[in-house]
Amino acid sequence: MTTAPLAAAVSAPTPSPSPMPRYIRMHDNDNVAIVVNDGGLPAGAVFGDGLVLREAVPQGHKVALVDIAAGAPVLRYNVAIGTAARALAAGSWIAEAEVVMPAARGLENLPVGTRGQQALEPLEGYTFEGYRNADGSVGTRNILAITTTVQCVAGVVEHAVARIKAELLPKYPNVDDVVGLEHTYGCGVAIDAPGAEIPIRTVRNISMNPNFGGQAMLVSLGCEKLQPARLFPKGSIPIANNGGEVAHVCLQDQAHVGFMSMVASIMQTADRQLAQLDLRRRETCPASELVVGMQCGGSDAFSGVTANPALGFATDLLVRAGATVMFSETTEVRDGIDQLTARAASPAVAEAMIAQMAWYDAYLTRGGVDRSANTTPGNKKGGLSNIVEKAMGSIVKSGSSAISGVLAPGEKLTRKGLIYAATPASDFICGTLQLAAGMNLHVFTTGRGTPYGLAAVPVIKVATRTELAKRWHDLMDLDAGTIASGEASIADVGWELFHMLLAVASGRKTWAEQWKLHNALVLFNPAPVT
Amino acid sequence: MTTAPLAAAVSAPTPSPSPMPRYIRMHDNDNVAIVVNDGGLPAGAVFGDGLVLREAVPQGHKVALVDIAAGAPVLRYNVAIGTAARALAAGSWIAEAEVVMPAARGLENLPVGTRGQQALEPLEGYTFEGYRNADGSVGTRNILAITTTVQCVAGVVEHAVARIKAELLPKYPNVDDVVGLEHTYGCGVAIDAPGAEIPIRTVRNISMNPNFGGQAMLVSLGCEKLQPARLFPKGSIPIANNGGEVAHVCLQDQAHVGFMSMVASIMQTADRQLAQLDLRRRETCPASELVVGMQCGGSDAFSGVTANPALGFATDLLVRAGATVMFSETTEVRDGIDQLTARAASPAVAEAMIAQMAWYDAYLTRGGVDRSANTTPGNKKGGLSNIVEKAMGSIVKSGSSAISGVLAPGEKLTRKGLIYAATPASDFICGTLQLAAGMNLHVFTTGRGTPYGLAAVPVIKVATRTELAKRWHDLMDLDAGTIASGEASIADVGWELFHMLLAVASGRKTWAEQWKLHNALVLFNPAPVT
Repeated sequence: MTTAPLAAAVSAPTPSPSPMPRYIRMHDNDNVAIVVNDGGLPAGAVFGDGLVLREAVPQGHKVALVDIAAGAPVLRYNVAIGTAARALAAGSWIAEAEVVMPAARGLENLPVGTRGQQALEPLEGYTFEGYRNADGSVGTRNILAITTTVQCVAGVVEHAVARIKAELLPKYPNVDDVVGLEHTYGCGVAIDAPGAEIPIRTVRNISMNPNFGGQAMLVSLGCEKLQPARLFPKGSIPIANNGGEVAHVCLQDQAHVGFMSMVASIMQTADRQLAQLDLRRRETCPASELVVGMQCGGSDAFSGVTANPALGFATDLLVRAGATVMFSETTEVRDGIDQLTARAASPAVAEAMIAQMAWYDAYLTRGGVDRSANTTPGNKKGGLSNIVEKAMGSIVKSGSSAISGVLAPGEKLTRKGLIYAATPASDFICGTLQLAAGMNLHVFTTGRGTPYGLAAVPVIKVATRTELAKRWHDLMDLDAGTIASGEASIADVGWELFHMLLAVASGRKTWAEQWKLHNALVLFNPAPVT
Repeated sequence: MTTAPLAAAVSAPTPSPSPMPRYIRMHDNDNVAIVVNDGGLPAGAVFGDGLVLREAVPQGHKVALVDIAAGAPVLRYNVAIGTAARALAAGSWIAEAEVVMPAARGLENLPVGTRGQQALEPLEGYTFEGYRNADGSVGTRNILAITTTVQCVAGVVEHAVARIKAELLPKYPNVDDVVGLEHTYGCGVAIDAPGAEIPIRTVRNISMNPNFGGQAMLVSLGCEKLQPARLFPKGSIPIANNGGEVAHVCLQDQAHVGFMSMVASIMQTADRQLAQLDLRRRETCPASELVVGMQCGGSDAFSGVTANPALGFATDLLVRAGATVMFSETTEVRDGIDQLTARAASPAVAEAMIAQMAWYDAYLTRGGVDRSANTTPGNKKGGLSNIVEKAMGSIVKSGSSAISGVLAPGEKLTRKGLIYAATPASDFICGTLQLAAGMNLHVFTTGRGTPYGLAAVPVIKVATRTELAKRWHDLMDLDAGTIASGEASIADVGWELFHMLLAVASGRKTWAEQWKLHNALVLFNPAPVT
């Protein structure tokens, strides 16, 4: 449906003092636009083109640019985000109830490989300082990770990690941090049920994240369902240390007499791992070694206007530089599946994408819901009428290049370029699955604001609005709101983000790292608990 | 099927030095028994009654007491835990593969109220020192809990809790601890799907746990699906503080400029809450105010012989004293549903129990499994052949009284006595749901050993074997292995546990509290994520 790159379709805003009423239309064909002004606009406000507001419209909410007949399509991003529930005169506020959501696009007869097939011009000469691993991957941080088989050991691991940080880490100045990979899986779960392979491979692959240097260390209980041999089948994973063996402490080992003996055993093992990690040094690596996971959370109508288009621009730069970029969140791309298959690098990629959508459709149906369960009160308050509108703004992150691969949830990357990593849209689950895929850098765009962070990988947070960036001055790493105010172009902010990615990859701390704000690893387990 | 109380059916062991081969038969009708000796017994070992082992049998594993024909029932607890896969001569090891598991008992035509209907003799005069709350409930600890709507706020809450503990808690000597109630729910979930009410009411009801003194405090993000008004509908819950309002900090409030302002706001609110909690004083309360949640985890064949029967004895004491005792773990009682309906205090209680079983059967079927997905490698290593055998050993915890009520997952208790609180068997989910029900004391029996603990309620851990109790001397609070060795009777250990419950309720620390070993809150969410 979309015929021109969206970045080009943003009506160029005139730099002006904020009181002047302004809207942003995403595409020339759109019959609605969103109000830019902080605090929204009152009835009677007059835009530069003479359009008069018939009623007050909150910031980020939509105004009808022309008369829209009842039942006619409401067009944003040159896509019908729904049909008008009643006749809407030009200048009307298009509130959530005015837009009737269309049924999901079927998964048959989708266009394949009709767009984005011309290779983008290579971008050369950009580098960062990273930690190169034995398996060829590159870390952006140097972290000792302690994998766990089961939630049972979490209390002991937490105790041990606190002591390792206090007593051992100071001896190893080249190691950044120690992280316990605690999760709620491992026992009390139907471990042979359909779908159970997802959480298991997620834990396995997270342990191999490039930031952990191939020094896998495991704490298990002993009697749990997720046995170490099931988590790490022999020979299935590249491990640098211990001659290919995972360094392993089992709490139920007869050798452990008492709690202190368990802690001592974990600390001794950690000491050996830290000594190995401490040998790592940053070296100059090409930008092609970046593996960037992208997400949005707490989205508003500006997400698809400022932060996500800028991120899409940076995505194109990264892909041109030969890097890997993942976009995700199945329910947030479902309504744009035709755009995505059109950009598939091959019919196999299009088929894989369709298979992931079909799997998720079935998963939601089994639970009695559909993709419309995605949108939040905050999305709606921020002006997003429904999941179709949200999806259009979300997909913009993926830029314009061909999609070169698809990952099922929890799988590890095997190729570079723009990848669709199928995940739920839940911020924590998506981040956890992108960690498993092998991301070494995370970009998170937000309109409403979230203090999101991960312990294992730096998270760059991009605000969609300047007001949020100013208010959360010590949580937001980049302000994309300058695009809405006309102070900067999408390309300006895209380049700024690209340079920030290289700097953070080289060791510059993000705000979430500064404050040590970490969210939990949350595994995607579509199977029952027992 | 079972005709006599199991406690009475345990063959009385003769006190003897451990090298003498010994077995325990649970009921006179049983044709199998379990080997008691540490390290198991070799082929040729001769028991006191002349039975000779035909092959080596590991500790806790079953030996055939008589010749069992192929297809004949294998009887333990006077229940057919399965049928013999082939002819088994007396003295044979009954390994897992020798027992063919029966189909689950249907849920029709179950006996109702045919057992345990005679009221147990009242037990009077037992008290503990507890914190009485405005709503009549009694706490065993005095804790400031900070509820969260969503995982997004977890990093900020964790940061704030660390500062509250360091900077504020020392000012309030009568407050034991500060606990952030972090969880993975709240957004990225299908919040209107069937079953979504379970995680929501769980978070709501945990906030009202008696140990938190009715001083509910909430940190929310702002744009999340689980809005504060949905978590705490007006007037739906008894709150002591702020004139019935939950003390609430919303991170997206425009008033918060920067991260430090959020932390300051949480700390100011916590300071006011702590001042109220600091006024609480322990007072003498009857044992009837105890609300004990029971669980087993890392079970072995001794669980149903030592720790769980002793716990069942203590359960009867508690019920006689007028207290509330919850047993749980649906997949671990499913195979004994006929025993439970027979003990229902009314047809309504039996029907509620059957409804919970049917719901869980359907939930597992939807996920492509059945109740046999419960057993773990550790269970089997410990001698439990299948879920039927495990269930018989698990149900023993419930003692012999009538079952007076049933709770659906996440519901709050409304009556005293012996309650079936329907939960998954997952240790963390079960514990989390029992917290929501209102438990103020937790008993956890374990055979393989687990360092399980909860931040909100003291957990008394009971070892099924003396070897484990000795090896984990600073993690296990009570050794029930003395029952197997003949040093103590079930009644002895049951009384010891009862007195320990009163002492811990009055402030004595458990080992998990000593080491601050805490597991995560894990919500039961049968609905999809988005």
